[in-house]
Amino acid sequence: MFSVSRKALRSCLIFLFLTIVALVVFPDRARSGDKPNIVILFADDLGYGDIGPFGHPTIATPHLDRMAEEGMKLTEFYAAAPVCTPSRAGLLTGRLPVRSGMASDERRVLFPNSPGGLPDREVTIAEALKQQGYSTAAIGKWHLGHLPEYLPTEHGFDYYYGIPYSNDMKNKRSGGPALPLIRNKTIIEQPVNQNTITRRYTREALNFIDRSKDSPFFLYLPYTFPHVPLNASEAFRDTSARGLYGDVVEEIDWSVGKILSYLRNNGLAENTLVVFTSDNGPWLIMNERGGSAGLLRGGKGSTWEGGMREPTLAWWPGTIEAGTVSDAVGSTMDLFTTALHLSGAEIPKDRIIDGINLMPIFRNPRAEGRDHLFYYRGEQIYAVRMGPWKVHFTTQAGYRDSPHEQEPPLLYHLRHDPREKFNKAKKHPEIIQKARHLVKEHRNKLQPVEDQLDGVFEEGPRLPLEKALEDK
Amino acid sequence: MFSVSRKALRSCLIFLFLTIVALVVFPDRARSGDKPNIVILFADDLGYGDIGPFGHPTIATPHLDRMAEEGMKLTEFYAAAPVCTPSRAGLLTGRLPVRSGMASDERRVLFPNSPGGLPDREVTIAEALKQQGYSTAAIGKWHLGHLPEYLPTEHGFDYYYGIPYSNDMKNKRSGGPALPLIRNKTIIEQPVNQNTITRRYTREALNFIDRSKDSPFFLYLPYTFPHVPLNASEAFRDTSARGLYGDVVEEIDWSVGKILSYLRNNGLAENTLVVFTSDNGPWLIMNERGGSAGLLRGGKGSTWEGGMREPTLAWWPGTIEAGTVSDAVGSTMDLFTTALHLSGAEIPKDRIIDGINLMPIFRNPRAEGRDHLFYYRGEQIYAVRMGPWKVHFTTQAGYRDSPHEQEPPLLYHLRHDPREKFNKAKKHPEIIQKARHLVKEHRNKLQPVEDQLDGVFEEGPRLPLEKALEDK
Repeated sequence: MFSVSRKALRSCLIFLFLTIVALVVFPDRARSGDKPNIVILFADDLGYGDIGPFGHPTIATPHLDRMAEEGMKLTEFYAAAPVCTPSRAGLLTGRLPVRSGMASDERRVLFPNSPGGLPDREVTIAEALKQQGYSTAAIGKWHLGHLPEYLPTEHGFDYYYGIPYSNDMKNKRSGGPALPLIRNKTIIEQPVNQNTITRRYTREALNFIDRSKDSPFFLYLPYTFPHVPLNASEAFRDTSARGLYGDVVEEIDWSVGKILSYLRNNGLAENTLVVFTSDNGPWLIMNERGGSAGLLRGGKGSTWEGGMREPTLAWWPGTIEAGTVSDAVGSTMDLFTTALHLSGAEIPKDRIIDGINLMPIFRNPRAEGRDHLFYYRGEQIYAVRMGPWKVHFTTQAGYRDSPHEQEPPLLYHLRHDPREKFNKAKKHPEIIQKARHLVKEHRNKLQPVEDQLDGVFEEGPRLPLEKALEDK
Repeated sequence: MFSVSRKALRSCLIFLFLTIVALVVFPDRARSGDKPNIVILFADDLGYGDIGPFGHPTIATPHLDRMAEEGMKLTEFYAAAPVCTPSRAGLLTGRLPVRSGMASDERRVLFPNSPGGLPDREVTIAEALKQQGYSTAAIGKWHLGHLPEYLPTEHGFDYYYGIPYSNDMKNKRSGGPALPLIRNKTIIEQPVNQNTITRRYTREALNFIDRSKDSPFFLYLPYTFPHVPLNASEAFRDTSARGLYGDVVEEIDWSVGKILSYLRNNGLAENTLVVFTSDNGPWLIMNERGGSAGLLRGGKGSTWEGGMREPTLAWWPGTIEAGTVSDAVGSTMDLFTTALHLSGAEIPKDRIIDGINLMPIFRNPRAEGRDHLFYYRGEQIYAVRMGPWKVHFTTQAGYRDSPHEQEPPLLYHLRHDPREKFNKAKKHPEIIQKARHLVKEHRNKLQPVEDQLDGVFEEGPRLPLEKALEDK
């Protein structure tokens, strides 16, 4: 009997010792059990069909393939808008961009001569998580205002490294200064060398994770690509079967691989939620330099599915079951609510938040998602999704075509007919009625706000960023 | 020293004992180390975009997802023809269907009043493998001749269970007798209950594997679906988010899962090559009852990519590396050459064989595939693929449209432009010249053969099968 007790005692002591060692070696794991790290990997203009798990035949994405195998593929996940600036505003604030003034019918996005940006009154994921003890960084393309008062460090990010707007915003048409690379609020390179930018974002991201791993951290990594002009580092140039577009996407895949490997190798995987998605659909008018929406109709700028439904993966070993697929309807706005929920932050009560908490879906691929979704183009609702149904009130044939009002509206069953080919409007007038009602109710509650995108900087197109930074 | 030797001796004896046990318990594994089992799972009218690994958003295919994770996804793998009968002839003979008389410009496939079938002089995979000691079975839709002399048991299959032609070939337009279910050469049910047919094929397949697992075996399982009319068993009806089409594909996915599980659970996985693919693209004119070619253009009947490129998976644990993707160009005709190679059979030397051995690709996802491929519609070459390039000499807008000669031909770079949108003919006249030369050389060597598809049975459309079987 004595010998058994001694054994038990010894086991007990060994367990205690190992626990203490674990606490010393991995303090973050113990501390942040209830505060997981959050990483958002956000491609730019990547199409629904442009990565392996979503069926691209010649873009090789082994790291995203593995991310899907180890995590969840979300097949009905949407950007908050079909273009850059409003899409990013929606993600970071959890609110329809029209609520923050970050959506407009005139100028669709911010340009180098725009004086506006994300208003200070908005609460971003970074701001909310910082309050909960998170280290926060934005590494990549910002595009929510490039004057000093709008930069990421003014919106809750401890650290910023990246370009202030799209990588094509230095050309004859849009004017503007040479494209700068900014660290926090300082231009550190101008023009930025775009060839190495994905590589440098990756290094910056790994450094941030490395120095932040003792606290919980929030990393927002909005890649510059595959937005045109396409650029890849030497290691990737001329390597993809898909040509330059493939090179660029494969370098992003490499970057995702590096980040996931780091998390795995440093004992962080089981305490980190990583979401990969894109800001809007493929820029089809760029032809071979643009991506593919796979089986979906339309692309960037349009409210057809190809404009807003994104190739999305969620990864959190131990919490998200490996190799799962969910067709629950979700939105990048939901990442706000999900992140706040996980961090322990309260959801702001003084404003309307449009995001929902995605954790029930991440924990159960059969869980239901959003019951409806508005497809905004600028300040207008072009379409509504309700369950499997989508009602189009207004459509555009292509990126540069004028809007066409649909009367009667078009009706598609997106789950039977993901390509939006078979109009069921005649058979289901009651669904269209319900959609009209939903839109009316929503619009009635909408508060008018100052438009942030429409202004033009008085002193001409070249000044704002350089001047503003020089002023400091 | 003595004690160490005794230990070594004991280890040695244990090893010997386990080896003997293994040989007794799994005699097939020991015997067929050099003769692997071969299973071909062949869907009917399944589109390139219709399963999870190829990006369908709402058809849930967890077993095919797992098959891809454990095996290889082939993204540029083609059927031998864009319609049923010639496609199957190409797969089983390793030859372009025009060489066996199984392709025609008049009647595209065999009908219930067709007197023809796959000629006896053709060598099928089953015939060649039977000579090498394989047990062989065809379970599913045949469509290579329904008169007794053309049935599978006349073409090297020990066992046959299935329907003789397409499941829509009992209707006012095509006439013909009620659709029969045949075992070997006997009608066992007429009309066949299509609701339970996938389930029954699966049971027959498992029974065949079970009774054949001591010899090497070849199982050819051409599913009846998702060819219309769509039917699913009660367990699958109204369960898929994609509607009836999804129910039917999900039942096939279930069937694939059952077969792979059986192989895994019976120690057969490491000695069995399983290939999943489809006979041609989705039948787009069936609207929601037809499938989707994903990002590819066109569907069944057409020589656009969507008509002939198939969602293909290859699985052979231990031989094919898990989670790999290959964009090597392959064809169902290559399954003939691959199967013969694996079985130890000689490739027939008295005729032209169009298949190549796929084992170098299966063993190395970066290996090169076919250097060219002909896209036949009936007896005509409509297009040629050479490396990444595809030249279209003739196109059809849709399934029922008349052919349109392209002069100058169209030229697409399929790896940069899988949807065939950007014609590069003006930039590369030399590639078109090379394609013309290739076609000319090929046609010069082509031997004229008797057409098997064009005849009509004299005594009217209702007789052949019933009568012929009654005659016995």
